[in-house]
Amino acid sequence: MTHHHNYTITKDGQLLIKKMESDQVETVWDRHAAQQPQCGFCDLGLSCRICAMGPCRVDPFGEGPQQGVCGADADIIVARNLCRMIAAGAAAHSDHGRDLVEVLAEVAENKAPGYAITDTEKLNRVAAEYGIAADGKTPEQVAGELAHAMQEDFGTRKKELALVTRAPEKRQQLWRKLNIMPRGIDRETSEAMHRTHMGVDNGWQSLLLHGLRNALSDGWGGSMIATEVSDILFGTPKPAPTKVNAGVLKADQVNVVVHGHNPVVSEMVMAACQDPEMTKLAEEKGAKGINLCGLCCTGNELLMRHGIPMAGNHLMTELIIATGAIEMMIVDYQCIMPALSKVAACYHTKMISTSDKARFPGMEHVEFHPDNARKKAYDVVKAAIENFANRGETYIPVEPLDAVGGFSVEAVVGALGGTPEPLLDAIKAGKIRGAAGIVGCNNPKIKHDYGHVTLTKRLIENDILVVDTGCAAVATAKAGFKVADAISHAGPGLKEVCGSLGIPPVLHFGSCVDNVRILVLAAALANALGTDISDLPLAGAAPEWYSEKAVSIGAYVVASGIYTVLGPMPPIAGSMNVVELLTKGLGEVVGATFAVEPDPEKAAVLIRGHIENQRRKLGLDATEV
Amino acid sequence: MTHHHNYTITKDGQLLIKKMESDQVETVWDRHAAQQPQCGFCDLGLSCRICAMGPCRVDPFGEGPQQGVCGADADIIVARNLCRMIAAGAAAHSDHGRDLVEVLAEVAENKAPGYAITDTEKLNRVAAEYGIAADGKTPEQVAGELAHAMQEDFGTRKKELALVTRAPEKRQQLWRKLNIMPRGIDRETSEAMHRTHMGVDNGWQSLLLHGLRNALSDGWGGSMIATEVSDILFGTPKPAPTKVNAGVLKADQVNVVVHGHNPVVSEMVMAACQDPEMTKLAEEKGAKGINLCGLCCTGNELLMRHGIPMAGNHLMTELIIATGAIEMMIVDYQCIMPALSKVAACYHTKMISTSDKARFPGMEHVEFHPDNARKKAYDVVKAAIENFANRGETYIPVEPLDAVGGFSVEAVVGALGGTPEPLLDAIKAGKIRGAAGIVGCNNPKIKHDYGHVTLTKRLIENDILVVDTGCAAVATAKAGFKVADAISHAGPGLKEVCGSLGIPPVLHFGSCVDNVRILVLAAALANALGTDISDLPLAGAAPEWYSEKAVSIGAYVVASGIYTVLGPMPPIAGSMNVVELLTKGLGEVVGATFAVEPDPEKAAVLIRGHIENQRRKLGLDATEV
Repeated sequence: MTHHHNYTITKDGQLLIKKMESDQVETVWDRHAAQQPQCGFCDLGLSCRICAMGPCRVDPFGEGPQQGVCGADADIIVARNLCRMIAAGAAAHSDHGRDLVEVLAEVAENKAPGYAITDTEKLNRVAAEYGIAADGKTPEQVAGELAHAMQEDFGTRKKELALVTRAPEKRQQLWRKLNIMPRGIDRETSEAMHRTHMGVDNGWQSLLLHGLRNALSDGWGGSMIATEVSDILFGTPKPAPTKVNAGVLKADQVNVVVHGHNPVVSEMVMAACQDPEMTKLAEEKGAKGINLCGLCCTGNELLMRHGIPMAGNHLMTELIIATGAIEMMIVDYQCIMPALSKVAACYHTKMISTSDKARFPGMEHVEFHPDNARKKAYDVVKAAIENFANRGETYIPVEPLDAVGGFSVEAVVGALGGTPEPLLDAIKAGKIRGAAGIVGCNNPKIKHDYGHVTLTKRLIENDILVVDTGCAAVATAKAGFKVADAISHAGPGLKEVCGSLGIPPVLHFGSCVDNVRILVLAAALANALGTDISDLPLAGAAPEWYSEKAVSIGAYVVASGIYTVLGPMPPIAGSMNVVELLTKGLGEVVGATFAVEPDPEKAAVLIRGHIENQRRKLGLDATEV
Repeated sequence: MTHHHNYTITKDGQLLIKKMESDQVETVWDRHAAQQPQCGFCDLGLSCRICAMGPCRVDPFGEGPQQGVCGADADIIVARNLCRMIAAGAAAHSDHGRDLVEVLAEVAENKAPGYAITDTEKLNRVAAEYGIAADGKTPEQVAGELAHAMQEDFGTRKKELALVTRAPEKRQQLWRKLNIMPRGIDRETSEAMHRTHMGVDNGWQSLLLHGLRNALSDGWGGSMIATEVSDILFGTPKPAPTKVNAGVLKADQVNVVVHGHNPVVSEMVMAACQDPEMTKLAEEKGAKGINLCGLCCTGNELLMRHGIPMAGNHLMTELIIATGAIEMMIVDYQCIMPALSKVAACYHTKMISTSDKARFPGMEHVEFHPDNARKKAYDVVKAAIENFANRGETYIPVEPLDAVGGFSVEAVVGALGGTPEPLLDAIKAGKIRGAAGIVGCNNPKIKHDYGHVTLTKRLIENDILVVDTGCAAVATAKAGFKVADAISHAGPGLKEVCGSLGIPPVLHFGSCVDNVRILVLAAALANALGTDISDLPLAGAAPEWYSEKAVSIGAYVVASGIYTVLGPMPPIAGSMNVVELLTKGLGEVVGATFAVEPDPEKAAVLIRGHIENQRRKLGLDATEV
């Protein structure tokens, strides 16, 4: 196989795929090829295994059965399956949020050595949103009350989540009218699983509406709590320089890589790696030091808050091990391919799993809890240092690139002088035509990073500000778009605005749960204009999405009023009713729709058209009509 | 097609299938036949569509791919899929419980006209278990506090659910040791969805352990709350006579049938049907009265508490419409085949859906909420009466049979004189060898009712007391086992004991959520013996299960220490590791295992063997060894 140029646009990726070929180690692309042809029924969403009267399939050509044993037709089967994808995605993000709330609660009780409240200002601000007054209380007391109040958001006692009040008033009213205002975070997931059980909700429209509610419980609930509590515990991000791509690994240092999504483990690992005692130990073992790098969203969390270098995104997680330079990869949860330990077994890399809810074949399990995390972090970092002696030849194929991360909403508004007005003014003046959030994963069905990078390039060329998260944010950083000089790729208006602020035209907004930062900024812009999010010249895109979390994100972004273009087709094509509702009908319901366009050049045209159209509808370019 | 004798053992079923054939109306068996051959990958659990890198399949013959794109192998894929089935089942039961708690909360605030606290004694008893003292408070105050405390069980703030303290102390300790003590009801479902997301839990054992925890959050949480609150609101069941099978329909009356699972709607429908004003209206329209009958578990709820006649179980729900005698079928949620409205369209039956979370194509939607339920009930019953004029020819093929329902634990213990001791004494003396809970659904893969009836017959013949719920309970009632005279089918010991108590050898324990009554009785027996449930001569069986709820039930029953035999094979055969853990390994973990045996004759042998073995281990039959 010599497809490595077809698999990825990245130099480090291409070279490492080549190395894995010569090392005869299997990659995700090999497994994807082995799965061809993928099942057409499953791909169209027409296969149902929700009960044991089945499994059932609806014939997409209309010749075979058009309903399952229970009588469910294509519309119902597709809608149920999609609803369950949203439920899993919302559950994943929200369980991540819950874990952080539990750390916050333990910090409040002084039971989590090593953890602390880092951003007291944000603690008090978020507490106020939950109706908790901070005056006269210690930060720990406020944290305890806030954790308690946030835990209520997960349950079933409330009629509305606390943070939905951040959405524009019009949007809140719309959600109430549609009966999709999220009540309890876990409740909506449970109800999604209930509704999709045999013989419960067989209305494909009502199923999809509940799917939106479930997703909103993620976007304005679980994920938002995850981001806010992470900021409180570990600090609200501020712009800071970092380095990206496989070149961040260092040939002469102990390389420790963290992978996953939740900062709870990686923050303690970082503290241990930065301890001079550990550096000394590494030097005793012949290394020049300890080099901590990130992958995926755990990497993004550390990059955003501490400028820790980023080794790569989803499809780089296997390849990076083939450098032979990684002493240890420490994983928490989500998007960790179980194949990683097979790759690691071909090199000297030690794989450590840390979460009680995420074990992997072939990994050593060192379970981290808030009360022991600091100690466990030292244990594993010591083991990583010990493993330096086992290193063979290394192959670090490229030099790292510069990038800037850390654009929290607080940082952006701060850079604008404390109000979003200057950004609005630039939009009103047409210097910036609008903004697009580019988010989501990698997927072997799309050439690695091609979707993210191409779309970003076309948008900034056309004066559309790009904010990105997750694997998308890593892709554009590796492509060189996350430095101030990248304004050379931007159109004249965007170039002028970013140039005067000294910021890149592509802003790193964080990890996947940090998509809520985009929601918060969008709500702030809508509120400043006295309108709804759906009236703004905004768009979302997930050019290389693969995960159920991305389905939930897409659903809450659209339900929040932002038009969103997906790269890969979700498994819904078996029901034209579902496809039409999502791509057209939703416009009349929530003021935004989905589009699907795997070609990022064409996706850019769709987004530009949408943003220009929104501008006209807002009356910003009346003269141009 | 003239397969009607192969499809069901019941006379009413056979005759109605014949009628539907001549009416050219499709049945569930036709749709099942049309789905053949069902997908082997799905059937073995080897198909994965958890992310959009897939869909993936593992080749069971070992020639094609052995892992998905992410690297998940057969064990991981099967375990994830099974875990999601449990999550859906637990969510369905528990959301049902939540709905009842919300009614309780509204009754407490006097916002649910028509609803009331019916069993104050039980209210106070359950409240005490939640640590709520009743003295000096009105029932409404206690109900409000109890609803509040139960809602906490759904959330994330607690470390253990309240009602797990009903389990034997040894069992509670075991759950804590295994880290499968359920914390929050919705939490465990959300965590199951999180763990099964790509890249989270890839340990097939840890996935299955969490599946048990999720199921326990149903059995000792959501379902248990559903049963207890239903008793508080609508009365704790007491033995009472009723009638069963399609013959309960009346040719000269307005027939109203309720179908689904939650008594909240059907209780109000019953009140309206029993209003003399409504009877008068029916008489004005030429009917002799209003005949309310039940189907499935909504039917079981009314049967248990009010002796309302039972028209049939799951596979009878289509057939019964073909009588042409049903003016209206009112459904709430769960196990309602969307095909029903197609059948109804061939006759004059009006189909009414009532739940905001369960709509069906071709049904009229009349949404019931606690505040409007009484009024809506009158509205729909009036519409049913109006529909009497549209009735054509009717075909009620059989005469109804007698049966006795209403065996709550309170009723059983009451009949025994206030303590379970006499039952224990009969077991110790060997008159009763042990007890089996036969539960679950119908499934067109098994001849309708054959599994339930055959297994029950063989067990009572061998002096094993049978308690049953759900579709199983309806099957044995229709087979004539639920009358005092049915002791003629029992072995000599069981005959003597039941004869002296005047009870049938097969006790109707209620609906599917009422399986918790079996848990409570088992715990009471274990506590009386000072031992664990897993030491008792007990077994469970689900000879004709089809639903994800049944998977959750099976999992919590086994996790509670009761050996359980399934009829249809769950979709797990693609992983021999999973199969072996569930059928053997779990014995060392939770003291009980699953078996799969579609032939009820052989299942009876397995259960008898197990019960006799348990007796020997308990030392009850030392002399016989």
